[in-house]
Amino acid sequence: MKVLVLNCGSSSLKYQLFAMPEEAVLIKGTVEKIGSEEGTHSYKSDGKEGSVTAPILDHREALRQVLATLTAGEVGVLSSAEEIAAVGHRVVHGGEAFSSSILVTDDVKRAIADTIELAPLHNPANLLGIEAMEDVLPSVPQVAVFDTAFHQTMPQEHYLYPVPYVLYQRHKVRRYGFHGTSHRYCASRVPGLVGRDLSALKVISCHIGNGASLAAIERGRSIDTSMGMTPLEGVMMGTRSGDIDPSLHEFVMAKEGLSFDELTSMLNKHSGLFGVSGLSGDMRKVVEARAKGSMRASLAFAMYEYRIRKYIGAYAAAMNGVDVILFTAGVGENSPLLRGLICDNLTYLGVELDPAANDHGQGERLISTPASKVKVCVIPTNEELMIARDTNVLVTGMLAKEES
Amino acid sequence: MKVLVLNCGSSSLKYQLFAMPEEAVLIKGTVEKIGSEEGTHSYKSDGKEGSVTAPILDHREALRQVLATLTAGEVGVLSSAEEIAAVGHRVVHGGEAFSSSILVTDDVKRAIADTIELAPLHNPANLLGIEAMEDVLPSVPQVAVFDTAFHQTMPQEHYLYPVPYVLYQRHKVRRYGFHGTSHRYCASRVPGLVGRDLSALKVISCHIGNGASLAAIERGRSIDTSMGMTPLEGVMMGTRSGDIDPSLHEFVMAKEGLSFDELTSMLNKHSGLFGVSGLSGDMRKVVEARAKGSMRASLAFAMYEYRIRKYIGAYAAAMNGVDVILFTAGVGENSPLLRGLICDNLTYLGVELDPAANDHGQGERLISTPASKVKVCVIPTNEELMIARDTNVLVTGMLAKEES
Repeated sequence: MKVLVLNCGSSSLKYQLFAMPEEAVLIKGTVEKIGSEEGTHSYKSDGKEGSVTAPILDHREALRQVLATLTAGEVGVLSSAEEIAAVGHRVVHGGEAFSSSILVTDDVKRAIADTIELAPLHNPANLLGIEAMEDVLPSVPQVAVFDTAFHQTMPQEHYLYPVPYVLYQRHKVRRYGFHGTSHRYCASRVPGLVGRDLSALKVISCHIGNGASLAAIERGRSIDTSMGMTPLEGVMMGTRSGDIDPSLHEFVMAKEGLSFDELTSMLNKHSGLFGVSGLSGDMRKVVEARAKGSMRASLAFAMYEYRIRKYIGAYAAAMNGVDVILFTAGVGENSPLLRGLICDNLTYLGVELDPAANDHGQGERLISTPASKVKVCVIPTNEELMIARDTNVLVTGMLAKEES
Repeated sequence: MKVLVLNCGSSSLKYQLFAMPEEAVLIKGTVEKIGSEEGTHSYKSDGKEGSVTAPILDHREALRQVLATLTAGEVGVLSSAEEIAAVGHRVVHGGEAFSSSILVTDDVKRAIADTIELAPLHNPANLLGIEAMEDVLPSVPQVAVFDTAFHQTMPQEHYLYPVPYVLYQRHKVRRYGFHGTSHRYCASRVPGLVGRDLSALKVISCHIGNGASLAAIERGRSIDTSMGMTPLEGVMMGTRSGDIDPSLHEFVMAKEGLSFDELTSMLNKHSGLFGVSGLSGDMRKVVEARAKGSMRASLAFAMYEYRIRKYIGAYAAAMNGVDVILFTAGVGENSPLLRGLICDNLTYLGVELDPAANDHGQGERLISTPASKVKVCVIPTNEELMIARDTNVLVTGMLAKEES
């Protein structure tokens, strides 16, 4: 079965086409600047690469171009678009309605729309992608895979804020958490690395990319995560502040004469590594500047490391212990410096890093010594594969039901 | 030497008169409803108690009443007000100007005034108390003891927020921390309880009262604390939220049509235990309701415990280990239930609670077993004594200098 996985942003669209259940990626690509005269579609398939720039009116047109490429002579991986048996969509916010992936129906679309005010930057584009796909391939079943779903197992005392309870009752003000598909994928890789089942493990998953979140995963279930009602809460990120004093808003707005929109923009786009270093939200550039002696880059790096480390400590306390710490996503997979500093300050937990494996190893691996009480892993994340798997399972189940 | 210790609020004033260096409390009292027709002055001295209600115009008049009582026939502990050799004031916010207690001068008063915008609820009253005392006893040296001073040892990567650095340069936006005098006092008691010097210890101090903060104290120095630029950050408190998603403000204001003042008021006065339980910000009442089966009280208690526990875990990671955990202040000293739940979930650190010592012991004591790797203590706090000590030391030094 061919499964197309889509991740739609407001003016972009990423896709991968999988052969399932073999889990082979047949082609992947990105459409950017949707809505502009200079829309770009780049793709890569079995060594072949291509890029086309042309006006792209909307997501529907972008999808038509993608399907044309999939079935085109040169790189074509399908003889016809009808070979696509299912489409899986990344949807950022599922609110409290979805604790797992689901086949898209009108009710599901309504529920995604209902959650727009909790994720105004993401859910509208995700919904747009679903509707565009319905237009382009009307008979193909679609599946929604939510970033929040994995964290719906958090108990109430972990997901509520210490604010008047009525705010939860009236407006669902609570912690949801994000990156759930990534945390779930990485957790699924742990047993293979450490030789024990998830049901016997306390895992701390560190998804450290431009956005970053940690999850405390006990017996395979997320019991806490650092992002909250929105992706702004938690650890320090590339350009997002993460946790701050709740009184900072009013003080800074008054002092700097900022509107609320400007403050929100500052906390989301001009804070984190970027705001402290004054250089970049990209960890590679900050590390480079730090190596060249930039004090501010050094400070930004130290804060970043410290705030992740404190969350790891907090989650060890949340689960009364930890067996596995895993690092994933752009920074988590590619910064031995960061992993090294974190782990060197966690020896009290029984963490013993293997510097060679940390510095020179490649791909999915253990980076702790065999004697280390807490196992430390690097696991390249693969949210697309997780979406393809969920889509395959749900659509196969649906087809089996229809046949019986 | 007789030292008068003052803690001035906007309409109240607490005092204790110490004989130093004996550290004996000669009398203590409270004046409330300053500025009203029904000002009340209550005091207690060596078994004798009294209370007077009368119009009290301002802090100056309140202080005159206090001095009259100190020198009055019946409870009089002084033959004349001139016996008071020094006055020590609690001052909430010392900004970056003060890393220890200091003799009050015009410069010091200006620096306290400069910090008013960081502590608009507290510093004006503290300054008022100093000025009133100057009027009433003009020749007596005064000392300012700051809640923030103990935390001035935090390194920059712990006290800065992950927001644009320019906000620190322009407006001193940073973490300061509070309850420093209490954390410092309690830390000073630790060596006597555990038989090791502070210079060899990693201590986590939990000041859990109506306001609550934790401090990570490494070799006797505060390296992190949970309150930040203001006392709103950190753990869940009686009526304060502590940490929340920085996006909550805008969402809740829009949904509920709140002004910023109303939101600030909600986060400070109607959140925490009170907001979640819907009953009270007083832990005793919440525990009572929980015992009677109130689900919301039970939820509030669980959240409160969990958020403190996570900070303990975070500070263990901050110091790469912990040797001593201490509990102090109203809730910390008086809730074996809370201490028990916290410690039962910290066995991964090597915490082994002694239930008898926890449940039935009195006053300052160890509540961990002799075998416990991490020592756990209850230490009744005594900020007034710490202020008296600092005042005694500074004024004795000043007098010695004047004589030499």
